Amino acid sequence: MSIVNRRNFLLTSAVAAAGTAVVPQAIKAEIPKPAVEGVLKLSSQLGIIPGKDLAEKLATMEKWGFDGVELPGDVVGNEKKYIDALKNTKLKYSAICGAAFCANGDLVSDVVEKRKPAFEGIKKALTTAGEVGSTGVIFVPAFNGQTKLGNQEIRKILIDVLPALGEHAQKAGTTLILEPLNRGEAYFLRQVADAASIARDCKNSGIALMGDFYHMCIEETSDLGAFISGGSYVRHVHLASRIRVLPGQDDRQFVDGFRGLKQIGYQYYCSFECGVKGNAMEEIPKSMAFLRDQWAKA
Amino acid sequence: MSIVNRRNFLLTSAVAAAGTAVVPQAIKAEIPKPAVEGVLKLSSQLGIIPGKDLAEKLATMEKWGFDGVELPGDVVGNEKKYIDALKNTKLKYSAICGAAFCANGDLVSDVVEKRKPAFEGIKKALTTAGEVGSTGVIFVPAFNGQTKLGNQEIRKILIDVLPALGEHAQKAGTTLILEPLNRGEAYFLRQVADAASIARDCKNSGIALMGDFYHMCIEETSDLGAFISGGSYVRHVHLASRIRVLPGQDDRQFVDGFRGLKQIGYQYYCSFECGVKGNAMEEIPKSMAFLRDQWAKA
Repeated sequence: MSIVNRRNFLLTSAVAAAGTAVVPQAIKAEIPKPAVEGVLKLSSQLGIIPGKDLAEKLATMEKWGFDGVELPGDVVGNEKKYIDALKNTKLKYSAICGAAFCANGDLVSDVVEKRKPAFEGIKKALTTAGEVGSTGVIFVPAFNGQTKLGNQEIRKILIDVLPALGEHAQKAGTTLILEPLNRGEAYFLRQVADAASIARDCKNSGIALMGDFYHMCIEETSDLGAFISGGSYVRHVHLASRIRVLPGQDDRQFVDGFRGLKQIGYQYYCSFECGVKGNAMEEIPKSMAFLRDQWAKA
Repeated sequence: MSIVNRRNFLLTSAVAAAGTAVVPQAIKAEIPKPAVEGVLKLSSQLGIIPGKDLAEKLATMEKWGFDGVELPGDVVGNEKKYIDALKNTKLKYSAICGAAFCANGDLVSDVVEKRKPAFEGIKKALTTAGEVGSTGVIFVPAFNGQTKLGNQEIRKILIDVLPALGEHAQKAGTTLILEPLNRGEAYFLRQVADAASIARDCKNSGIALMGDFYHMCIEETSDLGAFISGGSYVRHVHLASRIRVLPGQDDRQFVDGFRGLKQIGYQYYCSFECGVKGNAMEEIPKSMAFLRDQWAKA
């Protein structure tokens, strides 16, 4: 039964039942609603936004109705530039993507001496995230080939060291965000539920996770199931189509995943990490409208 | 908002809206219902059922209201005995657990010569499953230590060989059921969503999966999310409490998981694989009543 059909059915049976106070059977197995209503806050990496400099890009993003801006790794050391850039705008920073030491595998390296500098580097990125008001630092434990250790050993190291990073993140007012990729890029962490089990085992609210619709299309059987498993650990979302261009530029649907975000009462950003087919000035606003429509349908 | 509160809210707002034909906003984000209504069909392994022989155990199970009987591995070669035993009962066979070659890691062994005999052994178990009317043969790709291969290599072998086994299963009228365990037993396959991604990649409806509430309690952050990700691949469920005794004998709850089974329109068996604290004659019926209550609440 489609949502629309069920709505009508509920309407009818509720009205029919009103006189007799019988609870309509049709809603018996519903999943409880989250305490907070989920929101769609759109963000984007800066690369695809037209403009000759940061100020021009931000002005365009604000005009188009973006809520957030995903930061590049070079924000570390350039905090003032990025803080100043948001003054006189309504934009906020979503996550930081590509910070040094966050995706080079060193934290879980088979070369033990590499781990400490990585740990310190990630702490530095977290401090920056706190300073600029970013929701968190995206962290890929290891791309394929970056460590000789197997999944089991990598997981043990993470459970051992992430709580201290989570502690630092909390103090900075931000989070460290585990990012599952697809097996072609990072076999260690491929599914949202797996990232969620790591975050849970860390027992530290500074450790979070994200879902990326491009990778999820390859690795997940259900966007809805994935985000429900991610639950309160979901702190960021990457938006891209099946072939990693703008949402709406191919057949990739977002309704099922957005249902998941609504189910968990998602409050953070959904951010473009993708290429653009055609003219960005036309295609990005079109994609934003497509996503708002998918959200409404979810 | 609890389910009960939402029901009342729906009732009220639907009635209020009836005159104006406005669709109540409160149900906007509902997840569509499955095409078929899920059912709770209880089954058990024979070990915990009191009785001096198979006939006595089956009589007790029928009296208690079980629907299914989970078969031990020795059914392979003893098909007639088990087929005859069900005559004059309403019971049916659920899955086969512990069939030879199904949990010794040989199919994904680093010793290549071990793989072919395992393949043939699993085929034999599938043929048996078809003959006795079993829903499927439970298959653990590898317990820890049973193969020297890493997760990535094990997965590649499975995607390579499982479709042929699925083909054989389909012809026999049954399935091969991947079982995720907890990391202490089998690091390779720990989550339902991961088994689902393997089943999907096999592109063969003879390859299915199961969830075990004991292992899920360790590995999943959400029973609901896990079963939604399992979707139509879920063909069997093992029931056990947090400490692996009867459901209801400790604090483990089943409502969230049962919601997942309802969401996917589950039609197969939920089967006890656990110990018993106390007197089985009293405790098993009590556990069955507990589970039916949890199902009703889901």
